Amino acid sequence: VGNPLLLPELRAMLAEDDKAGLVEFMTELHPAGIAEFIEDLSVEETWQLLAHAPIEQQAAVFSFFPLEKQAELVSGVGRERMSKLLEKMSHDDRVDLLQHLDDEVVESLLPLVAKADREDIRRLLSYPEDSAGAVMTTDYATLPPEITVSDAIARVRHQAPDRETIYYIYVVDDNRHLIGFVSLRDLIIARPTARIADIMQREVVFVRVDDDQEEVARTMGKYDFIAIPVVDEQDRLVGIVTFDDLADVMEDEATEDFHLAAAVAPLPHGYSDSTIWMLFSKRAGWLVGLVFVSLLSSGVIAAYEQTLEREIILAFFLPLLIGSGGNTGAQAATLIVRALATDEVRLGEWFRTAFKEIAVGLALGATMAAASFALGYFRGGLVVGIIVGTSMMCIVLFTNLIGTLLPFALTRLKFDPAGASSPLITTLADATGLLLYFWVAGWVMSLTGRM
Amino acid sequence: VGNPLLLPELRAMLAEDDKAGLVEFMTELHPAGIAEFIEDLSVEETWQLLAHAPIEQQAAVFSFFPLEKQAELVSGVGRERMSKLLEKMSHDDRVDLLQHLDDEVVESLLPLVAKADREDIRRLLSYPEDSAGAVMTTDYATLPPEITVSDAIARVRHQAPDRETIYYIYVVDDNRHLIGFVSLRDLIIARPTARIADIMQREVVFVRVDDDQEEVARTMGKYDFIAIPVVDEQDRLVGIVTFDDLADVMEDEATEDFHLAAAVAPLPHGYSDSTIWMLFSKRAGWLVGLVFVSLLSSGVIAAYEQTLEREIILAFFLPLLIGSGGNTGAQAATLIVRALATDEVRLGEWFRTAFKEIAVGLALGATMAAASFALGYFRGGLVVGIIVGTSMMCIVLFTNLIGTLLPFALTRLKFDPAGASSPLITTLADATGLLLYFWVAGWVMSLTGRM
Repeated sequence: VGNPLLLPELRAMLAEDDKAGLVEFMTELHPAGIAEFIEDLSVEETWQLLAHAPIEQQAAVFSFFPLEKQAELVSGVGRERMSKLLEKMSHDDRVDLLQHLDDEVVESLLPLVAKADREDIRRLLSYPEDSAGAVMTTDYATLPPEITVSDAIARVRHQAPDRETIYYIYVVDDNRHLIGFVSLRDLIIARPTARIADIMQREVVFVRVDDDQEEVARTMGKYDFIAIPVVDEQDRLVGIVTFDDLADVMEDEATEDFHLAAAVAPLPHGYSDSTIWMLFSKRAGWLVGLVFVSLLSSGVIAAYEQTLEREIILAFFLPLLIGSGGNTGAQAATLIVRALATDEVRLGEWFRTAFKEIAVGLALGATMAAASFALGYFRGGLVVGIIVGTSMMCIVLFTNLIGTLLPFALTRLKFDPAGASSPLITTLADATGLLLYFWVAGWVMSLTGRM
Repeated sequence: VGNPLLLPELRAMLAEDDKAGLVEFMTELHPAGIAEFIEDLSVEETWQLLAHAPIEQQAAVFSFFPLEKQAELVSGVGRERMSKLLEKMSHDDRVDLLQHLDDEVVESLLPLVAKADREDIRRLLSYPEDSAGAVMTTDYATLPPEITVSDAIARVRHQAPDRETIYYIYVVDDNRHLIGFVSLRDLIIARPTARIADIMQREVVFVRVDDDQEEVARTMGKYDFIAIPVVDEQDRLVGIVTFDDLADVMEDEATEDFHLAAAVAPLPHGYSDSTIWMLFSKRAGWLVGLVFVSLLSSGVIAAYEQTLEREIILAFFLPLLIGSGGNTGAQAATLIVRALATDEVRLGEWFRTAFKEIAVGLALGATMAAASFALGYFRGGLVVGIIVGTSMMCIVLFTNLIGTLLPFALTRLKFDPAGASSPLITTLADATGLLLYFWVAGWVMSLTGRM
């Protein structure tokens, strides 16, 4: 990884127009390394530097920039040069970029792009967001079934420079129906005179063009594929999704789950690309909705207003008790939501899981009860200690069970279990906690004759 | 993906010992497909079925079972047969399995494994958990620098059957120092008479054997590598990490972040593998710790006990106000924690982000204030409406800012930003919310002469 150069030195080379040095820099390093290293160059400097590499390397470096940087660069260069670059970019990367540009910019660029590429771009742009079609690329390698292995290697060699991958090669008939699959490893090992049809794998695992990207990621992850073929309704090969897209999809899906876990509706772009209005609108819905859930708690307080007025010391422990209930419920819900998302726990295991969590809840409840008994005793004497400790035991046990069961219930009802967000659980736990607290308080006080 | 068979049919074939059918089943499908399909077979049935495939295919299918299932299978077969299978398993997969077995079982198996494999296993077992060494595999392909491309292809062909990947091939000198890298694509495209030393890439991106697996995943993701080489302190090649391990690492890291976000300490194994005691111990610490944080809230209530006793209607809005504060803070913290984790927002952007979130907080606060003014007015008249609405505005704005800044502060102090968990934020927001509520109430009531 030894890049001996510093950015100011590179800038100096640009200022002096040190052609030999710039060519060396642009060809020795990995495109991803170059892209990261020069991210802080100005738009003009970047284009000046890129010009010192062959167009394929320019396209490769360009693709490794973040999308915002790519969009910025587009606005700082002639349409002519940009259209040439687009022709050399990987088919999925250029569509990602065009989706990030304003429509006028796209419409001014496309006429300059070669016809075949233009049509390919329009087709890829037409697939719905988050579908296999939207993440796939069309620069895959194919072979006909009837040729020999040595002919196949010659063809693959010819296709290699402008294909996303040549390690998985798909066998198609004259109508582009997907009929088989060979890996480059298979080709290398096989007898040169063998026919592709005889060595290819006929049971090909594929996805449909309208499958959700999450489904695509799950299938690829299960089989450990470098790429997976995408077919249309007529079983014709229309694209492939490669392992590097899988990592992006996994990250996107994890981000969505994180946001849901905090009651934030999915953001269409990343955080830094989201406007203030977008962030507001994705958060306000849940926040306002939870106001109504919290009215349950207000109702409980209203019902026990007199108890509270008479024994105002009970108010002192309110935040502790309902807070602990919320925290316990949020822990349990998050554990279960994640275990369901990673297939570690299945819907059918809800009963066994609930049983396990009752045991965990008893242990947590006992620990928390001991701590809160001590606090209550110290602050208000034995009776208050008993009330606070007993309430804590009941609250922890109960909210732990709510947190455990809600994700299962949501899954059963065909909702996303991630809907069992920490804020929702916390707000539900508040009402439950208050109710349990006032019940226990009333019961203990009537026993001790304090009411 | 068309597997026309149903599990009962497969069971019937096993009962009848239909050799031809079983051999066909074991060789036609992808190992991952077979493993998933037969997961519910008994241990005896599984071994009976596996016996109908060559040992390499047996090892491949076996590796696709979940680890618990693999461990179960080990206990149901002779050590002799199991040791043969271990020799054919991918080097990283077999170490994962052995780490999952009891020490006595491992010690009874290892003496039967061929010496070279045994030594390889012991070495891989010695690396610390979550390090590059612990996720890497040692069955990589290498080439010396001085041979020609056609000789190299012949060697790769020879290495192919028992290497994890032959698509990335590492060039090493006589002392196994990593000096270059060629992809199989490079080899296929190159002139057959060219020397490897002339076509290889000399700037090799690598990781160190003791690097954290998260660092490995980040580097691989940045460069979109199928595999990345792992070197020791003397720059000698000791292993590779492949893209399929990357997906596992990403999932593990996401799970850890999810758990932290709900104040659950990292679980060493998955949820279903965790004992009740383990779950208890990973949750109790935070829960008890948060008890002390919630004492801040109790302190605020104690300080304003008289206000509350006089105006008990204020208690009615307590859950609404502190709940909304917690929810807002949890949303903001999760957005920022995730944006930091995915490198969308950097530490240096804290000021810009805070500015953005003040705007979002104002919009959310205004919305929530309107809703709570209405509730307050309806329940207690104009003054109460003003108190509740104004408090809500302040609380949302303030907790949103806490949620935004805490992850930055934790990062700055070299803590994991994910420590800004929803439970911690909620508990902090409770105290802040109460304080703001009583301040606003006191101020409005003194203005209106109600106190």
